[in-house]
Amino acid sequence: TQRASYLVGIGKAEVDLRAIGQLPGIRDIHQVSDDYQLVSRKWRVKPTVLDLGDGVYIGEGSLSLVAGPCSIESEEQMEKVLQHLLDNNVRLMRGGVFKPRSSPYSFRGLGMEGLKQFHQMARARGIKVVTEVMQVSQVEEMHDYVDVFQVGARNTQNFNLLDALGGVDKPVLIKRGISGTIEELLSSAEYVFSGGNEKLILCERGIRTFETASRNTLDLNAVPILKEKTHLPVVVDPSHGIGIRDYVAPMALAAVMAGADGILYETHEKPEEAASDGQQTLNFEESARLIQNLRRVYGLRKELV
Amino acid sequence: TQRASYLVGIGKAEVDLRAIGQLPGIRDIHQVSDDYQLVSRKWRVKPTVLDLGDGVYIGEGSLSLVAGPCSIESEEQMEKVLQHLLDNNVRLMRGGVFKPRSSPYSFRGLGMEGLKQFHQMARARGIKVVTEVMQVSQVEEMHDYVDVFQVGARNTQNFNLLDALGGVDKPVLIKRGISGTIEELLSSAEYVFSGGNEKLILCERGIRTFETASRNTLDLNAVPILKEKTHLPVVVDPSHGIGIRDYVAPMALAAVMAGADGILYETHEKPEEAASDGQQTLNFEESARLIQNLRRVYGLRKELV
Amino acid sequence: TQRASYLVGIGKAEVDLRAIGQLPGIRDIHQVSDDYQLVSRKWRVKPTVLDLGDGVYIGEGSLSLVAGPCSIESEEQMEKVLQHLLDNNVRLMRGGVFKPRSSPYSFRGLGMEGLKQFHQMARARGIKVVTEVMQVSQVEEMHDYVDVFQVGARNTQNFNLLDALGGVDKPVLIKRGISGTIEELLSSAEYVFSGGNEKLILCERGIRTFETASRNTLDLNAVPILKEKTHLPVVVDPSHGIGIRDYVAPMALAAVMAGADGILYETHEKPEEAASDGQQTLNFEESARLIQNLRRVYGLRKELV
Amino acid sequence: TQRASYLVGIGKAEVDLRAIGQLPGIRDIHQVSDDYQLVSRKWRVKPTVLDLGDGVYIGEGSLSLVAGPCSIESEEQMEKVLQHLLDNNVRLMRGGVFKPRSSPYSFRGLGMEGLKQFHQMARARGIKVVTEVMQVSQVEEMHDYVDVFQVGARNTQNFNLLDALGGVDKPVLIKRGISGTIEELLSSAEYVFSGGNEKLILCERGIRTFETASRNTLDLNAVPILKEKTHLPVVVDPSHGIGIRDYVAPMALAAVMAGADGILYETHEKPEEAASDGQQTLNFEESARLIQNLRRVYGLRKELV
Repeated sequence: TQRASYLVGIGKAEVDLRAIGQLPGIRDIHQVSDDYQLVSRKWRVKPTVLDLGDGVYIGEGSLSLVAGPCSIESEEQMEKVLQHLLDNNVRLMRGGVFKPRSSPYSFRGLGMEGLKQFHQMARARGIKVVTEVMQVSQVEEMHDYVDVFQVGARNTQNFNLLDALGGVDKPVLIKRGISGTIEELLSSAEYVFSGGNEKLILCERGIRTFETASRNTLDLNAVPILKEKTHLPVVVDPSHGIGIRDYVAPMALAAVMAGADGILYETHEKPEEAASDGQQTLNFEESARLIQNLRRVYGLRKELV
Repeated sequence: TQRASYLVGIGKAEVDLRAIGQLPGIRDIHQVSDDYQLVSRKWRVKPTVLDLGDGVYIGEGSLSLVAGPCSIESEEQMEKVLQHLLDNNVRLMRGGVFKPRSSPYSFRGLGMEGLKQFHQMARARGIKVVTEVMQVSQVEEMHDYVDVFQVGARNTQNFNLLDALGGVDKPVLIKRGISGTIEELLSSAEYVFSGGNEKLILCERGIRTFETASRNTLDLNAVPILKEKTHLPVVVDPSHGIGIRDYVAPMALAAVMAGADGILYETHEKPEEAASDGQQTLNFEESARLIQNLRRVYGLRKELV
Repeated sequence: TQRASYLVGIGKAEVDLRAIGQLPGIRDIHQVSDDYQLVSRKWRVKPTVLDLGDGVYIGEGSLSLVAGPCSIESEEQMEKVLQHLLDNNVRLMRGGVFKPRSSPYSFRGLGMEGLKQFHQMARARGIKVVTEVMQVSQVEEMHDYVDVFQVGARNTQNFNLLDALGGVDKPVLIKRGISGTIEELLSSAEYVFSGGNEKLILCERGIRTFETASRNTLDLNAVPILKEKTHLPVVVDPSHGIGIRDYVAPMALAAVMAGADGILYETHEKPEEAASDGQQTLNFEESARLIQNLRRVYGLRKELV
Repeated sequence: TQRASYLVGIGKAEVDLRAIGQLPGIRDIHQVSDDYQLVSRKWRVKPTVLDLGDGVYIGEGSLSLVAGPCSIESEEQMEKVLQHLLDNNVRLMRGGVFKPRSSPYSFRGLGMEGLKQFHQMARARGIKVVTEVMQVSQVEEMHDYVDVFQVGARNTQNFNLLDALGGVDKPVLIKRGISGTIEELLSSAEYVFSGGNEKLILCERGIRTFETASRNTLDLNAVPILKEKTHLPVVVDPSHGIGIRDYVAPMALAAVMAGADGILYETHEKPEEAASDGQQTLNFEESARLIQNLRRVYGLRKELV
């Protein structure tokens, strides 16, 4: 893929913009002052909408739903989740094949074999695959089998990985760091964008605070703030954001009302038997109800003001 | 006022409940195990709804809106705010007369004289007064001029004040501490409740975290968690929760969708000229639009299952 | 008591300082720009040393040790603690008589009767009493029976209490708030100082963070920062700062090496039987060893450049 | 390198330990219950001391000093730092060649060429090289040119990197995550240890909190807690821990008194001209004074009981 080139002016250097504007290959010239320059609304006012093909879009103008299990476990499991998504007209499926686990003795995922099967089954049903990439060497390996690369909360500042994803022609969904600021999330997006990949999605997924009644503290303040600071789509993960199954649905609805462009959540046929994160995973009945409610809430949001 | 008496069983002591049940004056007997016992849903399943008179209620079944300036500044200011509330059918007005300010050199409020005038003007218009009490000695002094005592985020664990409010026959709205846990908020409510005052409202108003892009981090996770743990009404203050005027409205709408029973926010005819907190205060046009939107969102929430 | 008067210039008003300097009663004139003005080193370069009488000082030039139980429990208990302090030449005893407890069902202290007895017994042995005042009404009541008023971490921003202590002629030890910034601690000190009471001590006691392996996170960074920003003495409370008995001693020694002017810690004859905070309380053997070590570490610190 | 094999029993499975003990190659059998098993003091009581050759050790029994610039910048710079270390008998030099920077437009280090030169110059002077590895592909590449691999605070939970370092025969210094708990640091160490590399050093470097007066909040509580929980050496980085040049020295001294086995700090001939982190870097005069003082403090610590 041919990379776009950006001229990014840092600091106080004096440059004659007109001379640059006449160079071959230059499409556009801008002067911006923030640290995150290319992802800033000051540089590009119009919201970015990503086209994933087959009529699937992420960005303003539609509500993107991304659902699926924490971990890809088996063909049978994928079959059931895919059917559930088809039944509810959800076009994006999430599911991890490389699992970053804080203990070295936990289940670590099905790896590339699982991903290949996941991709094949999803594609056959017109569903897009969103899955986490954990290191530079996986970027090329996974490339043909993912529709959206996900960067997890522990890798938001893995700058080598961000650099590698800057050279890829597939969308990248970047999760906010476990204790990452909004500024840092924007800087991470800038890494990828300045590398040439403009297809970015930002994801609020809860931050670490002193509160222990929930797994994380879902920071919905970040939604309107990000929507004003950047032209990129902003989605919310309420499953990790609160971490308690019974409360995922109200937080998802609240996120849409705060302005989110999409919701990423965990669902599984039998959450009690999930290989990971079962305590925050919806069963299909809960998931179907949530999807219906999310669409009604999004419909109302468009009518307000 | 005659205080109710509660028997609260702490620890593992063996008691014959039947014998207690026959004592004169005992209405009811319960055994609960949490630290917050009387405010727990395990003790009282039915949600508490407070009746403030004149058809004003706080609790499940209606959406309570509490609006007004950070500080009561003048008769003219109050006149304008009260008219704005009447125009929009809002029945509860907030406004501080004792201002806890972190610098000793800032405006500290109009005091009791301001409160008396506030109360008189509000009552003449059928509007209820919600205002902050800062110390024990003010409880009696303020009593006849408030409809709801507010306990601020710096006093959530002022146990002497909570004790004093336990003996009062007016509702108490307790704000979550600046770095207070959900458990601590419930314990503070338990202080007042166990003192005999069951008329309590809990308020999420944002917590202190590492994030500096917003004044506080509004923890909407707290809404569904509190609604399940306690029978008391739960309201949200998005003005302090995010602290930036442009984002107050989306956070208010999100709070309702998360399950809040009411919204407490700051409004002023000219926020730019407010004596305090102008940066997070809505003007009347913004406030009117928010009220209308909040009611539509609440209407939809009731329709969802 | 006759209050001193301070002229504090806030904002940009133009004033002819020479004219003010000639007014009767004016001792000194300064222009400073921080929010905390009177407590700033920019206003007073020389470190403040408090003279409590009987040869007891707090401030640079000596290491102040303040030891004793969390709660005053009985005459026998006080007798034993006082003897322990005498044996080790410690001249300041801490002990609470009003206990702020997060649950309304916990032990709340012996109150004024306990304080009077505590004071009498301590004075008979030449030992100074440091105890917590929790509300405005207690200031006058407690005045004659305390040598140092302590403001607890939940009252650091109880501005009414700070105002009241500004009019008192006894030293005030202000603990940093549970989630209080260093700036806020200095502003709280400014409240008292600007009210006329210059006898202040600041205390780092740990802040609330996401870490749960310790009760609080002792922020020793605050010690050198406070020592540069203010002329007031800075002491550290390692008992609350880490909250685990075995680790109190190393943290106390570290605090001295970071530059603390004193250490406040909990000791009890039988920590296992203490009415409160036993898990972070040293027995007399541990306390005696700590005192000896603290003095050696302080001795070395004075030798270093 | 031949990897050691560990049998780690997870969960409740019943196993006949005697049968396992007779298998060829089994040196030792243990049953422990924590998540971090191999790094726990319950498994190995004796403190681990790492032997880096040439008489350089890290662990209990000596104070390890690791000093040097944030970034390796030039041959001249390295020459001067190495001479400074030789003059002060410091045997470990730190310096980054791959710089993880939050903005994509900042200096990113000299890379492998810089490392090779750094290593050659250091070895010629008998000084050991401590430098950060940022991704799996660098592990092999860097292997011959480092004496200690450093895992940075943004990679503490980069489990692929930890896995790769588990197969290496060089020591690994793991920094605590920016908002990492003590438990998580131990789990990260367990990753490397369970992969076969027992040569580990843990490093407290400050955590992210609400306090903004310092760059991070140095959590010295972590020192005694880690020293009790694990047999691994524990060092402290006061440069990142407070982030302000004037306060690095007192925090370093405090860390030693809290029980640290070593100190890692930044020094540069002209901190004002450093390519990164100059605001927290000591010049050689300050560094020499600190080294001298650290040794005196460590000497006293050994004398205390």
